[in-house]
Amino acid sequence: MPATGEDLHDAIIEEPATYSDAILSSDEEIYTKPHQPSAPIHSPPQKPAFFESLPVREHHEDFIRQCVDVLVKEAVFEGTNRNNRVLNWKDPEELKRLMDFGLRRAPESHEQLLKILKDVVGYSVKTGHPYFVNQLFSAVDPYGLVAQWATDALNPSVYTYEVSPVFVLMEEVVLKEMRQIVGFEGGKGDGIFCPGGSLANGYAISCARYRFLPDVKAKGLHALPRLVLFTSEDAHYSIKKLSSFLGIGTDNVYLIRTDSRGRMDVSHLVQEIERSLGEGAAPFMVSATAGTTVIGAFDPITEIADVCEKYKLWLHVDAAWGGGALVSSKHRSLLKGIERADSVTWNPHKLLTAPQQCSTLLLRHEGILAEAHSTNAAYLFQKDKFYDTKYDTGDKHIQCGRRADVLKFWYMWKAKGTSGLEKHINKVFENSKYFTDSIRHREGFEMVIEEPECTNVCFWYVPPSLRGQKESRDYKERLHRVAPKIKERMMKEGCMMVTYQAQKELPNFFRIVFQSSGLEKADMVHFVEEIERLGADL
Amino acid sequence: MPATGEDLHDAIIEEPATYSDAILSSDEEIYTKPHQPSAPIHSPPQKPAFFESLPVREHHEDFIRQCVDVLVKEAVFEGTNRNNRVLNWKDPEELKRLMDFGLRRAPESHEQLLKILKDVVGYSVKTGHPYFVNQLFSAVDPYGLVAQWATDALNPSVYTYEVSPVFVLMEEVVLKEMRQIVGFEGGKGDGIFCPGGSLANGYAISCARYRFLPDVKAKGLHALPRLVLFTSEDAHYSIKKLSSFLGIGTDNVYLIRTDSRGRMDVSHLVQEIERSLGEGAAPFMVSATAGTTVIGAFDPITEIADVCEKYKLWLHVDAAWGGGALVSSKHRSLLKGIERADSVTWNPHKLLTAPQQCSTLLLRHEGILAEAHSTNAAYLFQKDKFYDTKYDTGDKHIQCGRRADVLKFWYMWKAKGTSGLEKHINKVFENSKYFTDSIRHREGFEMVIEEPECTNVCFWYVPPSLRGQKESRDYKERLHRVAPKIKERMMKEGCMMVTYQAQKELPNFFRIVFQSSGLEKADMVHFVEEIERLGADL
Repeated sequence: MPATGEDLHDAIIEEPATYSDAILSSDEEIYTKPHQPSAPIHSPPQKPAFFESLPVREHHEDFIRQCVDVLVKEAVFEGTNRNNRVLNWKDPEELKRLMDFGLRRAPESHEQLLKILKDVVGYSVKTGHPYFVNQLFSAVDPYGLVAQWATDALNPSVYTYEVSPVFVLMEEVVLKEMRQIVGFEGGKGDGIFCPGGSLANGYAISCARYRFLPDVKAKGLHALPRLVLFTSEDAHYSIKKLSSFLGIGTDNVYLIRTDSRGRMDVSHLVQEIERSLGEGAAPFMVSATAGTTVIGAFDPITEIADVCEKYKLWLHVDAAWGGGALVSSKHRSLLKGIERADSVTWNPHKLLTAPQQCSTLLLRHEGILAEAHSTNAAYLFQKDKFYDTKYDTGDKHIQCGRRADVLKFWYMWKAKGTSGLEKHINKVFENSKYFTDSIRHREGFEMVIEEPECTNVCFWYVPPSLRGQKESRDYKERLHRVAPKIKERMMKEGCMMVTYQAQKELPNFFRIVFQSSGLEKADMVHFVEEIERLGADL
Repeated sequence: MPATGEDLHDAIIEEPATYSDAILSSDEEIYTKPHQPSAPIHSPPQKPAFFESLPVREHHEDFIRQCVDVLVKEAVFEGTNRNNRVLNWKDPEELKRLMDFGLRRAPESHEQLLKILKDVVGYSVKTGHPYFVNQLFSAVDPYGLVAQWATDALNPSVYTYEVSPVFVLMEEVVLKEMRQIVGFEGGKGDGIFCPGGSLANGYAISCARYRFLPDVKAKGLHALPRLVLFTSEDAHYSIKKLSSFLGIGTDNVYLIRTDSRGRMDVSHLVQEIERSLGEGAAPFMVSATAGTTVIGAFDPITEIADVCEKYKLWLHVDAAWGGGALVSSKHRSLLKGIERADSVTWNPHKLLTAPQQCSTLLLRHEGILAEAHSTNAAYLFQKDKFYDTKYDTGDKHIQCGRRADVLKFWYMWKAKGTSGLEKHINKVFENSKYFTDSIRHREGFEMVIEEPECTNVCFWYVPPSLRGQKESRDYKERLHRVAPKIKERMMKEGCMMVTYQAQKELPNFFRIVFQSSGLEKADMVHFVEEIERLGADL
């Protein structure tokens, strides 16, 4: 009979009497050796000879290794094999019936737990599959994965040097290197890893606001002037969402028009700044975007920086998506002027394919994060420690406990070198260009933007029944229904995943995203043919 | 010569000519099989017979398995063995010299990468070690760990059902079960997983504020009444920090006195509410604490709920730490009245030892999170999908991309059953009581709070040279220096980690935290003896 947690728990609450009882009783967590008060812990550590043969260790180690087998085989390798499905679609109600989600009073056996794990893997979308081109993240990087697993095994919280020495120093190194790549002088400034680009943007707003009116930290926004910030209508929704969360309000995010290629219209920006001044409001920040979410447009940072200088506004660049291009000497000119930004959001989990989540905010101003956010909690950030407490970096975050998102990216960077990251970027831009060239003049395909700037490509597929009917009254409506239908079919087959959306007056169009350098030109052709196959009869 | 990323990258940018070239070229990410346009992806998936023998898969799989070996042995089992050190202390400057943190243009070999991984493990604090009793998290749970690894291998982002079907449904199940345990009728309400308890508290403030003044979402706090919230002076600093981030301002967090046992003084709360009203401010929320960070006190929720009812204030309970006690019929009365809360923060990564991070916010009000935070981004939350889009839950979060923190906890829960969670809680409370009893009358030990309510125990160690000198002029000063010195010694030996802090007029005292049910009574004795040994000559 397989051992269950219940058996072991029953053992746990008994006081250990003999040595082997103690071993069994410590099974809930992973500790494998009971305390021996006679063996002083401060003597040099010795590896006990019997360690490897402890029955409980074997019991748990066996289980862990069986699980790793499932993960390596089914999630990692089979899950990214082009011969296998991207997903095994089940309707929510159906999936509730198929998987045993329920939590019960009694524990499950290891046998059952293995089956459950296989179900979790089996019914999950394989986001690392080459045909998952649905979001701004994808791919499984083996070095990133291993480093994530290491992070989990070490289970740190990155707030003090005493608890996370390696991770604290590693964050410093990576953030400095990234600031250097952005172009901040000497890599100087400030920075953090945050749980996602939305929060990175939120931090940027918070720092800009603090720099504008330090009083806000203690007094709040009540009775201060009405703060206004500016971003383009194609910017990520997090600017609005976080402005609302930060108490600024969505109405005070003035949306700037974009041009035909999705880039911020700088003359409209100036008009809107002037309008806000005319209203007696206090403009304090512009958030430019380097790589918009849908179109992949790069706002003209240099021109925006000039405007910010003139009006003394904080310049934030949301390069969550496009930031990766900075590591390529071929493509970094897309972000020209970014070195003039006050702050930059850059998510290595996007174009650089680090595992979820790996998001950074980089700032040109040293110490600004702590100034804006510190509360000096005495129980955690004691000043009478025996080491240099400048390494206790937690107080500049709004999180307290915090996962270490650095190791996975640092380890990938070590494994590939900066040159490898650059080649990766060049490859995904090539893929994107190849795909664009493949569909540009192909019957049934129409580009939304003629020359995509980033590696997300937006296009319509026009099925045979709709071709040549652009002038007909209901053309737009009918075209609008094509992408959702093709998406439904591809989901149900599980053959690929690509997203679609409408934007402004444009009917639903596809957005395919290239960020995996494991993709080849043959894959580009495959995507085109799949969409044709799925939409031929519409 | 070991293969390096550089070699492989060189291969990547060439177009694959032959089959084996293609294999090599796809090595950056983990894909192991090139696209074959002739094999339709939509036909039933077949496991290719040759799959296991592909050289690149072997290359990567070998590396992954070697890394897993390092992690399982060195991080997990040796790292939690009582015979080994909790940490191998190095000063920041020394560690910078010892570890190769630098990022370079050229890639590292697999051999070097393995060495690096061992260094990361070797110099990291073993937060799962039984003698790491320094923070409100600890222990390595094998089921939690495996499930974290699964999450990483699947690399989901939990915003839409189409991308994360399993995780979306699993979150629903766990959050409902937790609401039921809290006591919300029928488990109804709302809830989310968030990156840490601080942000959970921030969400609570945001929801309370929205409920009080829905205008805040669009208009912001400017020109609205001055909002005021209340929490005890012993509450976690995140209430102040997030109030500042949310634009409310730290001055508008009115701190309520605590009694001699660290619990909120309800009569002072009433006075402060009246004071704010007298000032013309708008009180909107009370944040009670169930298990304060340092003392482990439980605020009297029932009485606070009565006050909130009278003044129509939102009642939040920050049970990030103490929430775990809810699963124990023996200890849940500590949180009596919590079922009357509007919102509850509860971190399973604390008392219930789920891996970092696993934090939840649970609310009694259905739909409030989306009302307060949604922005309806059209590119992600399309309404014309073919499935029920109520399962696209991402818009109620302020994050966009979001890690799945649910699987590790759900899997632990499955493995142990609710009964196992309950036994765990009972065991850690027993440990705490046993430790308290061990030091209460022991020479040289003095309790900060005579009867700790939770499993964090605060005490002074008074070295022989200071005993019987309480009346001397510099007693407090000298006692204040004891804990930092003992902490320094234990860190440098690596024998254990326990934190200390001053609070109000009290000099530095230790706070030991019990949350691992792998600890036995013998360990409690060991802690006492270690502190005596380390402090004997002070």
